[in-house]
Amino acid sequence: MAAPLAFSAWIAERQQEAEAAVARVLPAEDAIPQRLHAAMRYSVLGGGKRMRPLLVFAAGELVGATPAMLCAAAAAVELIHAYSLVHDDLPSMDNDVLRRGRATCHVRYGEAMALLAGDALQTLAFEVLSAPDAFPDGDRRADAVALLAAASGSAGMAGGQAIDLASVGETLNQPELELMHILKTGALIRAAIFLGVLGGAFDLTVAERAALDRFARRVGLLFQIVDDVLDCTASTEALGKTAGKDEAGDKPTYVRLLGLEGARARAGELRQEALAALEGFGARADSLRALTEFILRREY
Amino acid sequence: MAAPLAFSAWIAERQQEAEAAVARVLPAEDAIPQRLHAAMRYSVLGGGKRMRPLLVFAAGELVGATPAMLCAAAAAVELIHAYSLVHDDLPSMDNDVLRRGRATCHVRYGEAMALLAGDALQTLAFEVLSAPDAFPDGDRRADAVALLAAASGSAGMAGGQAIDLASVGETLNQPELELMHILKTGALIRAAIFLGVLGGAFDLTVAERAALDRFARRVGLLFQIVDDVLDCTASTEALGKTAGKDEAGDKPTYVRLLGLEGARARAGELRQEALAALEGFGARADSLRALTEFILRREY
Repeated sequence: MAAPLAFSAWIAERQQEAEAAVARVLPAEDAIPQRLHAAMRYSVLGGGKRMRPLLVFAAGELVGATPAMLCAAAAAVELIHAYSLVHDDLPSMDNDVLRRGRATCHVRYGEAMALLAGDALQTLAFEVLSAPDAFPDGDRRADAVALLAAASGSAGMAGGQAIDLASVGETLNQPELELMHILKTGALIRAAIFLGVLGGAFDLTVAERAALDRFARRVGLLFQIVDDVLDCTASTEALGKTAGKDEAGDKPTYVRLLGLEGARARAGELRQEALAALEGFGARADSLRALTEFILRREY
Repeated sequence: MAAPLAFSAWIAERQQEAEAAVARVLPAEDAIPQRLHAAMRYSVLGGGKRMRPLLVFAAGELVGATPAMLCAAAAAVELIHAYSLVHDDLPSMDNDVLRRGRATCHVRYGEAMALLAGDALQTLAFEVLSAPDAFPDGDRRADAVALLAAASGSAGMAGGQAIDLASVGETLNQPELELMHILKTGALIRAAIFLGVLGGAFDLTVAERAALDRFARRVGLLFQIVDDVLDCTASTEALGKTAGKDEAGDKPTYVRLLGLEGARARAGELRQEALAALEGFGARADSLRALTEFILRREY
């Protein structure tokens, strides 16, 4: 993608902040039990766009929060994302062997260890978010845990995966497909955005929260449609994960439902709606705007 | 076991409180996604000794906490325990088909759904504990999450399971075996006890906390030794899970290390040490004392 120069630098800096934040909270490889810790670090470090931490940092700019104030939130949401990938790739789920350009966790460490690594990454997310240095006061720490848990559990990400499981080989209509993705991908993206806002120096108004919620829902769907399009159009090499998997797995996708051009048109609409939701925020939302374009134009 | 009559009633009442607490926080079976919610409810409800909630309630008595003040903590620790059983029973781990007298979750709902159910039960534990009604103030809610997460993750329960995995077929010495069990079983039992204390009307002194910590560590090991002994001596019918599994799985156990009589003798020692740690608490610790006897004498 061709981001404006200044925003490319913003992304690169924030990706480094995210990488440092997760590296800091992951247990050292030489701490007992070493193999579990190695599997955890392998699954999180050295790859990934860090899209959810970027959303944490960008949303934080709405309320004057610096990356340093949002490290715990950025790390926690990325740990949840990483755990979901490790479990999603397991033989009993998607049975995938390639992730971020290398062997998936269970291929490298065995199925049992990958199961435990995913489990422990989820736990670590909540440990990080509840730690005394995560946010300056207890209410905010507890609220952050509640927000991330609601987005990750059976009424969020895990629930979306369960619907996905049940829908293989079925033809979902657009509302059903959108519900699945709102849960599976959208809930965690929305949580990233609202975690960013939790770290702020001041609060949003009720109207601003409602507008941000509209933005978050559009961006979550946009992210998923682009994923579906890339699964059809990009190479395994560019994606770092197996391309063409949705088709092969007989999965319901936007491309199947709307065709490639229809999916691209829907992505364009969602971009418009997402940007419209940000109108009232002025320059404070510039990073969120640029991230929206980045999500639309990404190539992997 | 033959508990004194009054204590039998205490246990029965508290088990009902625990059952009601988990039933209340589990999503309804008719809420979308229904099959995931059914798998979650199946894995938690209708069985189990509720030992960890009993420890929450008993420890709460040290600081004047009633069961009503500890419902969230009791539910959360039981949800973590339930998730660990679901994942432990999976084919890639212990591959067990029987739990609490009926089919394990993956036998009933399939492997992928059992994986997701375990994942979502873990998330729910943290959601419950961080909810505004869990404890009266944010600091306590965040501290409770931090305590439970530390006990469940790679430096606690999941870490113990990783050591267990790595040690199949190996001969561990007693310190190594105790480290494994301190993590795998003991950490969550200790967390249950300290979660009970978090809900109190007043705090423990530093000396009292240290004594309670000694108690918690002894009771955790005691629980595991009795488990190992029962695996050898009780029937599958009495246990509600496959008996003789440790021997068949070539697992390191206290019975293998110390022999049946040696393991029983070590259990007796740990009981003595656990009770000694409670000496300074007077009648406030009567329920913890009775639970210690209950753990020693349990038959399943």
